[in-house]
Amino acid sequence: MYFGACYYAEHWPEERWERDAELMREAGFNLVRLTEFAWNRIERTEGNFTFDWLDRCMDTFASRGIRVILGTPTASPPKWIMDRHPEMYKRDMYGHVRGFGTRMHYCFNSEAYPGYVRKIVGAMTERYKDHPHVVGWQIDNEFGCVDTTWCYCDTCKVAFQQWLKEKYATIDALNESWGTIVWNNMYNSFEEIETPKLTVYQLHNPSYQLDFRRFSSDAVCRFQDIQIDVIRSAAPHQTITHNMMGTFNEIDYYKLAQPLDVAGLDVYPNFPDNEPINPYTPALHHDMTRGFKQANYWILEHQSGTPGAHILKATPKPGELRRWTYQSIARGADALLYFRWRTAVVGAEQHWHGILQHSGVPGRKYEEVRHVGAELNKLFPYLEGSTVRHNAAIVRCFENDWVFDIQPHNPGYKYLRGVKKYHRYFFEKHTGVDVISPEADFSGYRLLILPHLALVDESLANKIYRYVEAGGTVVMDFRAGAKLPDNRMRSEVLPGPFKELLGIEIDDYGIIAEGEEQKLRFEGDAVADYGARVWYDVIQPRGASETIAEFASDYFAGAPAVTRNSHGRGQAYYIGTELGAAALTRLLDLICEETGALPEWSVDHPEVEVSVRRRGDRSVYFVINHSTETVEVVPPAGGRHLLEDRQLEQVETLKPNDVLIYSV
Amino acid sequence: MYFGACYYAEHWPEERWERDAELMREAGFNLVRLTEFAWNRIERTEGNFTFDWLDRCMDTFASRGIRVILGTPTASPPKWIMDRHPEMYKRDMYGHVRGFGTRMHYCFNSEAYPGYVRKIVGAMTERYKDHPHVVGWQIDNEFGCVDTTWCYCDTCKVAFQQWLKEKYATIDALNESWGTIVWNNMYNSFEEIETPKLTVYQLHNPSYQLDFRRFSSDAVCRFQDIQIDVIRSAAPHQTITHNMMGTFNEIDYYKLAQPLDVAGLDVYPNFPDNEPINPYTPALHHDMTRGFKQANYWILEHQSGTPGAHILKATPKPGELRRWTYQSIARGADALLYFRWRTAVVGAEQHWHGILQHSGVPGRKYEEVRHVGAELNKLFPYLEGSTVRHNAAIVRCFENDWVFDIQPHNPGYKYLRGVKKYHRYFFEKHTGVDVISPEADFSGYRLLILPHLALVDESLANKIYRYVEAGGTVVMDFRAGAKLPDNRMRSEVLPGPFKELLGIEIDDYGIIAEGEEQKLRFEGDAVADYGARVWYDVIQPRGASETIAEFASDYFAGAPAVTRNSHGRGQAYYIGTELGAAALTRLLDLICEETGALPEWSVDHPEVEVSVRRRGDRSVYFVINHSTETVEVVPPAGGRHLLEDRQLEQVETLKPNDVLIYSV
Amino acid sequence: MYFGACYYAEHWPEERWERDAELMREAGFNLVRLTEFAWNRIERTEGNFTFDWLDRCMDTFASRGIRVILGTPTASPPKWIMDRHPEMYKRDMYGHVRGFGTRMHYCFNSEAYPGYVRKIVGAMTERYKDHPHVVGWQIDNEFGCVDTTWCYCDTCKVAFQQWLKEKYATIDALNESWGTIVWNNMYNSFEEIETPKLTVYQLHNPSYQLDFRRFSSDAVCRFQDIQIDVIRSAAPHQTITHNMMGTFNEIDYYKLAQPLDVAGLDVYPNFPDNEPINPYTPALHHDMTRGFKQANYWILEHQSGTPGAHILKATPKPGELRRWTYQSIARGADALLYFRWRTAVVGAEQHWHGILQHSGVPGRKYEEVRHVGAELNKLFPYLEGSTVRHNAAIVRCFENDWVFDIQPHNPGYKYLRGVKKYHRYFFEKHTGVDVISPEADFSGYRLLILPHLALVDESLANKIYRYVEAGGTVVMDFRAGAKLPDNRMRSEVLPGPFKELLGIEIDDYGIIAEGEEQKLRFEGDAVADYGARVWYDVIQPRGASETIAEFASDYFAGAPAVTRNSHGRGQAYYIGTELGAAALTRLLDLICEETGALPEWSVDHPEVEVSVRRRGDRSVYFVINHSTETVEVVPPAGGRHLLEDRQLEQVETLKPNDVLIYSV
Repeated sequence: MYFGACYYAEHWPEERWERDAELMREAGFNLVRLTEFAWNRIERTEGNFTFDWLDRCMDTFASRGIRVILGTPTASPPKWIMDRHPEMYKRDMYGHVRGFGTRMHYCFNSEAYPGYVRKIVGAMTERYKDHPHVVGWQIDNEFGCVDTTWCYCDTCKVAFQQWLKEKYATIDALNESWGTIVWNNMYNSFEEIETPKLTVYQLHNPSYQLDFRRFSSDAVCRFQDIQIDVIRSAAPHQTITHNMMGTFNEIDYYKLAQPLDVAGLDVYPNFPDNEPINPYTPALHHDMTRGFKQANYWILEHQSGTPGAHILKATPKPGELRRWTYQSIARGADALLYFRWRTAVVGAEQHWHGILQHSGVPGRKYEEVRHVGAELNKLFPYLEGSTVRHNAAIVRCFENDWVFDIQPHNPGYKYLRGVKKYHRYFFEKHTGVDVISPEADFSGYRLLILPHLALVDESLANKIYRYVEAGGTVVMDFRAGAKLPDNRMRSEVLPGPFKELLGIEIDDYGIIAEGEEQKLRFEGDAVADYGARVWYDVIQPRGASETIAEFASDYFAGAPAVTRNSHGRGQAYYIGTELGAAALTRLLDLICEETGALPEWSVDHPEVEVSVRRRGDRSVYFVINHSTETVEVVPPAGGRHLLEDRQLEQVETLKPNDVLIYSV
Repeated sequence: MYFGACYYAEHWPEERWERDAELMREAGFNLVRLTEFAWNRIERTEGNFTFDWLDRCMDTFASRGIRVILGTPTASPPKWIMDRHPEMYKRDMYGHVRGFGTRMHYCFNSEAYPGYVRKIVGAMTERYKDHPHVVGWQIDNEFGCVDTTWCYCDTCKVAFQQWLKEKYATIDALNESWGTIVWNNMYNSFEEIETPKLTVYQLHNPSYQLDFRRFSSDAVCRFQDIQIDVIRSAAPHQTITHNMMGTFNEIDYYKLAQPLDVAGLDVYPNFPDNEPINPYTPALHHDMTRGFKQANYWILEHQSGTPGAHILKATPKPGELRRWTYQSIARGADALLYFRWRTAVVGAEQHWHGILQHSGVPGRKYEEVRHVGAELNKLFPYLEGSTVRHNAAIVRCFENDWVFDIQPHNPGYKYLRGVKKYHRYFFEKHTGVDVISPEADFSGYRLLILPHLALVDESLANKIYRYVEAGGTVVMDFRAGAKLPDNRMRSEVLPGPFKELLGIEIDDYGIIAEGEEQKLRFEGDAVADYGARVWYDVIQPRGASETIAEFASDYFAGAPAVTRNSHGRGQAYYIGTELGAAALTRLLDLICEETGALPEWSVDHPEVEVSVRRRGDRSVYFVINHSTETVEVVPPAGGRHLLEDRQLEQVETLKPNDVLIYSV
Repeated sequence: MYFGACYYAEHWPEERWERDAELMREAGFNLVRLTEFAWNRIERTEGNFTFDWLDRCMDTFASRGIRVILGTPTASPPKWIMDRHPEMYKRDMYGHVRGFGTRMHYCFNSEAYPGYVRKIVGAMTERYKDHPHVVGWQIDNEFGCVDTTWCYCDTCKVAFQQWLKEKYATIDALNESWGTIVWNNMYNSFEEIETPKLTVYQLHNPSYQLDFRRFSSDAVCRFQDIQIDVIRSAAPHQTITHNMMGTFNEIDYYKLAQPLDVAGLDVYPNFPDNEPINPYTPALHHDMTRGFKQANYWILEHQSGTPGAHILKATPKPGELRRWTYQSIARGADALLYFRWRTAVVGAEQHWHGILQHSGVPGRKYEEVRHVGAELNKLFPYLEGSTVRHNAAIVRCFENDWVFDIQPHNPGYKYLRGVKKYHRYFFEKHTGVDVISPEADFSGYRLLILPHLALVDESLANKIYRYVEAGGTVVMDFRAGAKLPDNRMRSEVLPGPFKELLGIEIDDYGIIAEGEEQKLRFEGDAVADYGARVWYDVIQPRGASETIAEFASDYFAGAPAVTRNSHGRGQAYYIGTELGAAALTRLLDLICEETGALPEWSVDHPEVEVSVRRRGDRSVYFVINHSTETVEVVPPAGGRHLLEDRQLEQVETLKPNDVLIYSV
């Protein structure tokens, strides 16, 4: 297992390297990431490679037992390439060039760029494939970050046409699949098809939009493959990863992760767009990333100071770096690099703080990291080879995420909101939950939650039927089965292919507007004191399905809102609305009890996280106090307090930010 | 009279047509709209016309007594035309191409397009001019919809220059009229003049802007005329209409409606931009549309299910389709087509629901429509030939609407807000009000309300004087007479040409900011408990004008806010502010009592609508309960309940959504 | 001293001039501004100059003792120039042309434009250099107004490259200074560098951005110099000015004002973007403008009616024009021209009202102006030669303003917010405060406040040390010393060069988010009832510095928030947060008492302004009641009431809008 930081050696005078390496050694580091954007330092002019500075830099670390992961610097092609190939710049949907000045300015479909990429990655691999201290490679940086997945340049247009030609073979097949008959939008040849640029009003055909999103995601994967091929053919023993971004939804991360040796993640709890800082969101990032390959993963960047760029986000308080670090390890990280070692004094991210402030003087954050380093070196032997796995899984599907981006149904609604509410339930029950691909093996899970499975093909539908028939329990919800794989609506009564599984039919439905709520009554209750939001289905039970809860307001009062159907040896639940938090908890408590999906041991505070890594019979528990209160925990008997190397007390006390780590 | 739906035959397999036609017959339909966007189905390649499918489709309906209105499919020119003439695409004010992918992508001033239009419309007319089941034509679709009235392409630039040359003859005349002396914006030739594209900041000369709006509106009319000419010359006996959009203000609908045989309207009560669903807004759309030709009109699209596209608006509840249908008929519709028969499973409007859901299975909405169909077939004999007409009229002027778009005075203020408040007064008094053109015949109205008549020419001013002199009553309000026809300010003391009519002078004025209110006192009242918003005029009474209400706050306290002046045999009121609802009701009650502008019979609930259609001595009353309460109505004695074919009770009870229809 | 109005003679028929001039004479005017946008009236076609109309116009005023300031009409180059040189149009960051139609449409770096400018300005100067009634020239109009400082055209690109070449000499020096190593943004030649156009996301390198802002500001100065050279070489005895915009921050006004004879200001109290109308903001504009050259200044435009364009702002109430006029005179204006004489009936600013309404009939505003004119003619003899000067100064630095625009730290935070809170303290203490350049002479001030002095070079740092050593008192605050002149962060512990001066070190800091507050306790207080916002520094006292106030919340509770350090014979205060108003007042009261920075005599109402103009021993006091209450003032004994020509009463009563002017 690895612990360290991202180091931009090229930002600092070489004289400083020694001091930094020494401080890292004292902090217990065994890994640094180098060269992420260092193209010009390696290849200042075409074909002239300079590695001596990097050799010296690596030696500085190697002599202190610190190994290296190298970034391929392709996220920011140098100006000398861009000036030669101005068509490499991305264009936005208006046709504006998205020019030089930051990063990610290259088009993934560029024809010229791969040649340069192969040369620099090839040269680096050649140089370091046998270097004993190089453990592996990070490809590029945060693919898709800051709205770079989609490009509307002419190269992309042609590549998209080619992609469509391969998929549809004939233009008539495309017209049929997309339904271009609507609004007379029929194409006569693939060469006529544009990227979905500015049109009269931004309401492009949803089938067209979905294909463009698939194409764009595929293009990123193809671009990554170029580099993987170069590295793997030369250095098959070195680990290849990429730093993904948790809930980021523009690239199908299952496909992107597939050829990688290990999935990678960047973790910034204090940069949670549009929500307050909270422990659920990073936990979801971890669980998702673990699901990309159903395996442990590496954290390539981990918050170590105030994040920001031209502005600042919240400064981590004393104890918070340690707390987030343990959340990361507990949920399956096998490597963790702080971003960044020292805060940059130049460039756009002057306010993206590292362990050291601009001054380079070790301060309170360094002390905290050093403390964590000492602890981790004690813990790593217990954690090596351990993994994380749960009885329940949420199936997170990128194509359905895109379906809801294209057609949010309720204004502003997001597919991930549907995922997050289930995930948070498990967090508050002090356990994780696996977040897996629709293509994952379902067997072995007691409970499978499939939020918003609108778009579904026959094969997946059959797999779900078989899973339930074999005794599994599924939870599905509104819009299940509404769509064909080409993003057309099904011409069937809802829930389409799941009518038999769920034992219901739905003819009528509508949205519950933002800020409004409908009433909900659980069967057997006298009063209807639960709330329903976002959507309502007017469900007709068919066959033997039971009503678990029903609507108690508006014209659909009395219609089922939640149903259960026995199918084969299993159970299939349907939720025809967004349940308020209390209703969802009540329902999932019921389902989890039936299925045994929750762990036995628990604690009593909603903001206390419990995560477990297991290897064979041994389990290592991480009990993390995310709250601002001191919390008392009654651990199971016989556990061993790993950091203090003692038996657990009957009651263990955790102050805010504190972590209790024990093995049983 | 007609009742039916919009049917996109080309979206569905031909095998389905029979079933749909049969269901329509059972629902009492006698009309369907076809071919609105079916260009490629008719002319897949240039000049090769295919009508056999359409013949078969029309036969399917004809054999069930259902007639046809054909849409000219010109709202969405096919890709094969666009690729040949890329200059046909509209451009926005930045110069961006508004490309293919939705509809309305053609420029109204295109030189190439009319040739194609004449060919397809000509071929369709030739084919169906003698078809016994074709009742008429809908030209194109919702001209101007989704921001398509204004185009900034080079063709438009040249057409605009030509339009200006015809209007001004010399560039000096234009410079003088626009006042280009300001900011040194003088032109030296017509060829220098651009469309009002991006400039340093978006504050183009208001005279220039107004001419561009006039030009753009004219261009749409000219484009429509091309099609009218083709159809009328071949099939003068078939009815020509266009589906207009009620309060839409970018095209002068009086001019657009002038050459049509009948005005058309699309009705979507659940899609009321930026306001809650309410009965006033659709009522206003109806009254305006009736005013476009001062005659009954056709509804080409009428909400039948949840509207939406990528999102969904509110789903109509049981009973609502029927309620809105009756509001439409009651206010003057002689034809009503639901949009759409069945919800599309493909394309951008998958969430714009029809009578049938995606599945095509008849459900609750079909049952409601079938019920309405049976009722309407009973009612039509009573309604044929009947019309709607009131004693009061609001003069709605497109040019003044544009004047306020260009110069809102108070940030965000709209001319139509000035119209709506008067219209709503009449709705709440359980009557309609005519909404008429400044060019309409004023005689015959007891009361004429002229909101915001800022821009006014001598001829209109004289007409108003003559109307009052002959005994009419007018209500005018702030900014009356402020502008010359070229959108310059008048160099006169306000209210300019109306000083004598109104008996006042205004030197000082200002806005009342959003969220603020000034106090108002009616003459004779001890306290000032009314509110004034948006604007204040500091009025100086001249001659014999009386003060009806005065301001009671700020530095203009004591100055008149509402005045009345006798002129000739009539009365002229002036309101120098936006009266709060209570003040407006008090004032209009007074005026209506004086003029006898309100009907005699009324009910007692603000959300109960009463509308009347008359033919000769016979009146058919529609009492519509838009509220969520059960309401008791005491109808006039001797009326006949038309749906239940009985005498009226002394008290009739209407549940929510209920409608009482009686004749006297 | 001058008093008058802006007159657009070319907007009105020549027959009207006499009447206007006569009304002005009656109002006591002695100056009008002419020809600001009259290019085409003077040069309708290239090289053909027409001055006879202007001669006649000037004669009309001259015969009534009214002199003239001429505007160079270069703010709006005529269409005949633009059509010849379309590259003269500005472009925005997307590359869009910002076309014709308003004004300021020329690029400051245009190569073609200066030729035309020299010709027209030369012709005007030649004509009027010896005209006895021409007192001077206003160059162009409000440089930079409506987002025109920055241009992204190709000419600007080349000019920017040239500017950079002159500054850096080698591209390596630029790469080093900007830190282009970050994100691999290194340049290989100056010719590669673009203006900061659209990039992948708008987070351009802050050093690059700062240089672009410096370059853009310099370009405006250079453009102004062209005209100054023409005028001064021909007419060195005529006064040259430019109408600047108070707090406008895009151009370094110290540099722009340097070559002018007198600084100029436009005053619109009713157009205070994004805040309610208040007396502090115009007061700040005055104090800043006085600081541009540390001298009295001219007001080229002064609100005289409702401002606005397509909308209207608040209409000035009776008495307000007089009140604002006296504020302007009191704070150092030696000339004051109302904008505008009569409200334009044509063009984009039809709602920017003047003294006369559109009708041209004298109304209440004219009467108020006439009253002021009579008073001023009485006062001018007392005011001639008098100046305004205070014991305290705020150092307002344009480069640091830009630093915070580029990196606001806390989202939405502005450098000027940091300036305004100090300025307002002095206003509420009934005195002005000088607002001066970092390059001004500091000696003579008892107290110097240096808000947000992040970017600082060695020379300025040394000057501050010397000022304190000599006995001065400085107040510095958060981010002091954080930046090098090239907008890199300093690689030192904060406050960088001021560590010794302030006696503190800062390692840790963060933002206090909008809407949040931290607690603050002054030393010696039992409770912490003050608030801190925006930012916190975790200060470590070093040496003998004392804590004045400390934080009392969050993890930094107990750390100093405000410190004082004795250095040499002076004092240096540091404020590591934004103090709430009460805390700031307490602190500044303490500091002002120590330094004697406040005046002796005062009044007792926060909205009563006291300003003083002095010449030798004589002081003229202006006591201005900005509140809506009647206020009693106890003036010092022995003063003389100048308007009523009497001794002051023991108590003088001021109604709202009233002004007491006395001399002592």
